[in-house]
Amino acid sequence: MSAEVREILDKARAEGRTALTAPEGKRVCDAYGIATPGEGLATSADDAVALAASIGFPVVLKIVSPDILHKTEAGGVLVGVSSAEAVRAGYEQILANAHAYNAGAVIDGVQVQQMVGGGHEVIIGAVTDPTFGKVVAFGLGGTLVEVLKDVTFRLAPLTVHDSLAMLDDIKAAEVLRGVRGAAPADRAALSTMIERVGALVADFPEIAEADLNPVFASANGAVAADVRIILSAEAPVETPRIPREEILAKMNRIFHPRAVAVIGASGEDGKIGNSVMRNLINGGYRGNIYPINPKSTEILGLPAYRSITDVPGEIDVAVFAIPAAFVPAALEAAGEKGVAGAIMIPSGFAETGNVEGQQEIVEIARKHGVRMLGPNIYGYYYTPENLCATFCTPYDVRGSVALTSQSGGIGMAILGFSRTTRMGVSAIVGVGNKADVDEDDLLTFFEQDDNTKCVAMHLEDLKDGRGFVDAVRRIVKTKPVIVLKAGRTAMGARAAGSHTGALAGDDKVYDDILRQAGVVRAPGLNDMLEYARSLPIMPTPQGENVVIITGAGGSGVLLSDACVDNGLTLMEIPPDLDEAFRAYIPPFGAAGNPIDITGGEPPLTYENTLRLGLADPRIHALVLGYWHTIVTPPMVFAELVARVVAEERAKGNHKPVVASLAGDTEVEEACDYLFDHGVVAYPYTTEKPVAVLGAKYRWARAAGLMPG
Amino acid sequence: MSAEVREILDKARAEGRTALTAPEGKRVCDAYGIATPGEGLATSADDAVALAASIGFPVVLKIVSPDILHKTEAGGVLVGVSSAEAVRAGYEQILANAHAYNAGAVIDGVQVQQMVGGGHEVIIGAVTDPTFGKVVAFGLGGTLVEVLKDVTFRLAPLTVHDSLAMLDDIKAAEVLRGVRGAAPADRAALSTMIERVGALVADFPEIAEADLNPVFASANGAVAADVRIILSAEAPVETPRIPREEILAKMNRIFHPRAVAVIGASGEDGKIGNSVMRNLINGGYRGNIYPINPKSTEILGLPAYRSITDVPGEIDVAVFAIPAAFVPAALEAAGEKGVAGAIMIPSGFAETGNVEGQQEIVEIARKHGVRMLGPNIYGYYYTPENLCATFCTPYDVRGSVALTSQSGGIGMAILGFSRTTRMGVSAIVGVGNKADVDEDDLLTFFEQDDNTKCVAMHLEDLKDGRGFVDAVRRIVKTKPVIVLKAGRTAMGARAAGSHTGALAGDDKVYDDILRQAGVVRAPGLNDMLEYARSLPIMPTPQGENVVIITGAGGSGVLLSDACVDNGLTLMEIPPDLDEAFRAYIPPFGAAGNPIDITGGEPPLTYENTLRLGLADPRIHALVLGYWHTIVTPPMVFAELVARVVAEERAKGNHKPVVASLAGDTEVEEACDYLFDHGVVAYPYTTEKPVAVLGAKYRWARAAGLMPG
Repeated sequence: MSAEVREILDKARAEGRTALTAPEGKRVCDAYGIATPGEGLATSADDAVALAASIGFPVVLKIVSPDILHKTEAGGVLVGVSSAEAVRAGYEQILANAHAYNAGAVIDGVQVQQMVGGGHEVIIGAVTDPTFGKVVAFGLGGTLVEVLKDVTFRLAPLTVHDSLAMLDDIKAAEVLRGVRGAAPADRAALSTMIERVGALVADFPEIAEADLNPVFASANGAVAADVRIILSAEAPVETPRIPREEILAKMNRIFHPRAVAVIGASGEDGKIGNSVMRNLINGGYRGNIYPINPKSTEILGLPAYRSITDVPGEIDVAVFAIPAAFVPAALEAAGEKGVAGAIMIPSGFAETGNVEGQQEIVEIARKHGVRMLGPNIYGYYYTPENLCATFCTPYDVRGSVALTSQSGGIGMAILGFSRTTRMGVSAIVGVGNKADVDEDDLLTFFEQDDNTKCVAMHLEDLKDGRGFVDAVRRIVKTKPVIVLKAGRTAMGARAAGSHTGALAGDDKVYDDILRQAGVVRAPGLNDMLEYARSLPIMPTPQGENVVIITGAGGSGVLLSDACVDNGLTLMEIPPDLDEAFRAYIPPFGAAGNPIDITGGEPPLTYENTLRLGLADPRIHALVLGYWHTIVTPPMVFAELVARVVAEERAKGNHKPVVASLAGDTEVEEACDYLFDHGVVAYPYTTEKPVAVLGAKYRWARAAGLMPG
Repeated sequence: MSAEVREILDKARAEGRTALTAPEGKRVCDAYGIATPGEGLATSADDAVALAASIGFPVVLKIVSPDILHKTEAGGVLVGVSSAEAVRAGYEQILANAHAYNAGAVIDGVQVQQMVGGGHEVIIGAVTDPTFGKVVAFGLGGTLVEVLKDVTFRLAPLTVHDSLAMLDDIKAAEVLRGVRGAAPADRAALSTMIERVGALVADFPEIAEADLNPVFASANGAVAADVRIILSAEAPVETPRIPREEILAKMNRIFHPRAVAVIGASGEDGKIGNSVMRNLINGGYRGNIYPINPKSTEILGLPAYRSITDVPGEIDVAVFAIPAAFVPAALEAAGEKGVAGAIMIPSGFAETGNVEGQQEIVEIARKHGVRMLGPNIYGYYYTPENLCATFCTPYDVRGSVALTSQSGGIGMAILGFSRTTRMGVSAIVGVGNKADVDEDDLLTFFEQDDNTKCVAMHLEDLKDGRGFVDAVRRIVKTKPVIVLKAGRTAMGARAAGSHTGALAGDDKVYDDILRQAGVVRAPGLNDMLEYARSLPIMPTPQGENVVIITGAGGSGVLLSDACVDNGLTLMEIPPDLDEAFRAYIPPFGAAGNPIDITGGEPPLTYENTLRLGLADPRIHALVLGYWHTIVTPPMVFAELVARVVAEERAKGNHKPVVASLAGDTEVEEACDYLFDHGVVAYPYTTEKPVAVLGAKYRWARAAGLMPG
């Protein structure tokens, strides 16, 4: 914190200004060690010469007079003055010109300024993002970058690791390293300036936007030639956070409830309260189920209660299946009863414009310490407890991926996809309007949930972007987090007072910051689902060397394309390994990478090469291309791959293996078999198996699990 | 053609040079009206002034003396000389400096040169691509573009339409239109220069590479400041072309054969010659089938012949199912018999290194006028004739897409995918080593084949890129051509003598030229298959206005993302239409686009909004987002959509309709039903339905079928 900056900002606000003046901006920069052009006011030629000597040549000389507004017109500006003599002569000339221009003008003196320019022109800025708060931007300056929008963002404040990474994160990064004989930019100076801008806006949240544009970066430093600082009209609001232990206490009761009440339970087919009851019962939930309905004494064979408060014994979760109008009273009752979670299925709240109604139930829940999921959701599933607290159909394939969705439609797609692919799931959770429980709470729970090894989330927005990033950063160290961010391309027009603000399209900020947090972003719905299905069954790769073994040369080429597209490294096979592979394949087959074992080979060729690939410690992941032949039919291939992978895993050789199967429809059964045996396999596509492997690598790198 | 250029090139070759000198390059440019800096030799101050006046100020003055190599050191260069007086003074000063530097130097005079620079710096070049021949490149110059590789390619020679399109085809195209107050570039001058470079290399094929770099383009012209022209060491070879009528005569016999012989037919299970026989018979082919096998008299109930020459009557196609070693003799016999097509299934030719063996059979085929498919293929299918001339399994779902593949593995994936999706197919053709018949021949056939409405091709390379482009340009006017180009990312290091050559990575050239030809490029195998399945059943859109109607808000957001990703235009709904939609949806639903009818709506809401979308002529394509509910179950939705679409088509409202279905597994059946009824529909993905619609639009635009 800087008392001087505090004072400058307070003064500006006291004067009702939201923009700092250029001298104020310069003082702010000085306070944070951000270099701006050296300058000073000379009142004599000797002064001017001394100042220029201290600043360094060349300099710019400018008349300073309250009576001369158009300095250039008055002959009051000299640029590129490059010696002591020239400064002396220039000083006198400017005064003479000024006198000639306006004989009566009051002359304060001559400003001596460092002349900047040359080197690399970059932009460093900061904006206040509605989701993530203070965000720092870096990009190359100039027309091309303005046109190409080559800019990168990070949360403020930044570490030295962040700021150095930003220099490499723009597409034109190579330019800063010096191309075509140009000198490289001073990376230390640039990264330091980026960090200081981050520190400034983090220290003073009332700075809404800052623009250092252009910054000139030479081989020996960086200078911000122009500084623009804009203050926010209102004081920033802090997002309240619930302590982690408190979140977990409630979440553990919600996901492991000993008793569930269904508010609005019904015996009548077609009612939501009936579907929820049946799903709880048929799903196999073993805790107590209490139907609540003032008009019934028994529902689906269970004793019903007038009110939740009538139920003897504790209740952890209340599922609401009543119209919105009745929710407040019922939620009061549930609060009194001491439930941990209110599963708020009803719609008719903020999504239909009923914002007050939603606020009302949020306050009731908060008053009672009840965590509320929804409203406007399908409910939630937690397979380790056989818990299907939803009006959708039950789902019972246990596994290790937890999925959440903000939209009911996407939730239904998750369910259908899961059922048809027999995806092993730990949880499916609808978050709907996210009036209370949001992704951060769920990540906090899943992080410590041994039943969950991977999380996939469909998002449309984040209530608290920083909270999300914090939660992600903790969990991704051990579990991948896949995010489908909808609304990617809807970069709503954004009123921006600065250049940086104009560059901060929603999606670019989301993309950079989610990646920085370690999220694996899915480009689309189907990708999210496939990542969710595949990532948990793949071992974590121990290095970057990927090898393709293929029976179809044509698949090998497409698989190579896919590896490059997905940022995977095709291993350069060392001579001894090449020779070892060659021993197993026909003389006209191609070793190298892809290893083309050629079509028409018997199962043993697949087996030998696969086993070698799994056993050799220099290889870290395998991509298999299978071609349907009479000699090695699809199920023979599937069984041998499953067997060899299992045998090698038993020996400690854990590596991701993904397969692309080309053939007649029997390859579909073979793929199902392979998936069931821990090998990711897809028919009729060379892209998907490599895309999911790429996603696993992205996570492993972000989690710091890759050597090097 | 220019006699002067002819003379310059001949002289260079006669002197054993492959690079032209700078003055030669300038003369070549002059001959083609490509502006280079004006210049001339002055031998007096008056001369210099007159020259400068004719060239235009400012100019550069340079001493010309065989005895002064280091002109600058000798004070022999003056830049930015901007008036007649300054030229006169400069001339005298340079002579004086030269004398002072070397009193004995012979002085030829002073060169007066146009001073170029400023405006926009661009690069225009030409290279000889191994696939496409002469190709012209255009990009912005400077460091950033070198780093970002922002360049575009077209076949030479070019039309004015091509050259103007190139100016807009680079990512930084906006720069040329003038941003940040910069003047726009002279588009007419730039496009003319691009065309002239194209004409030059087309006229003189021995020019291997040309580089105009930099070219300075101001608001009033363009000047090539530096010219580099490189000649090829060998004379270029013309690719021989078979006349279209000749191709068609043979192809029509191959696809509509009255009789097929199987060389190497066998009664023994597991033999290729047995599979081919059975597929021909079981596939339902109604022409004559002649098994050829010297050791049998009858195979699968049909009389067998020792040799094809023993068969009475004409034979159109001979399918080869014998080892490579026996092929030449058998092909001679087939040639003598006068077959039109040799379906060369056997492997063991160029793909295993046996290049001579392949050349031998090519020559035998050519000698007899036999067109050969393969070798090294699975054969081919043509459903209108129930023809399954392959060792794979029969396929009988007739439809209008023809697919070809260079790889057997990809062919098998086509077959399996087709079977599982019941894709309607006209032909599946393996081209394998493409020793004779290639994609151009097949396109020529499919263009006039009424059974084929769409073509999808898997390519690894093209034998004759220009022939392919010519064939594509003809067919795409009426039928989409989908191309999966494998080896996209394998941009093998390329020995290049010019800057343009270094920028011409294989894939960028392929991508630009395929697009220019009107091809719809598929990013991956699965995309190719889905485009092939979907494009033929979609009507051609009549305009760019796409409207999303969705029951799930969450799907609507993702569908919007996908529309933007696929270059589709979300219609701005006019007020009267907005009101008309609002009349059908709940008050809290959202009109606009997407039209969110909200979840839980009955079938009638889907029906009303869909019908309005189909009937209103301002809307050109519909994207539906379905959400599985009890009120409107999946099959109810599917049946109503199919019915409404059929009813509106009967009224003449032909529009593409694609649907994304989110729900439990019943949505899969609903999608199948919709596909069977001419509506493209996918479960669990918002991307695919929009991607195929985008592909249809790309074709319609390229074919010139879209208004505006």
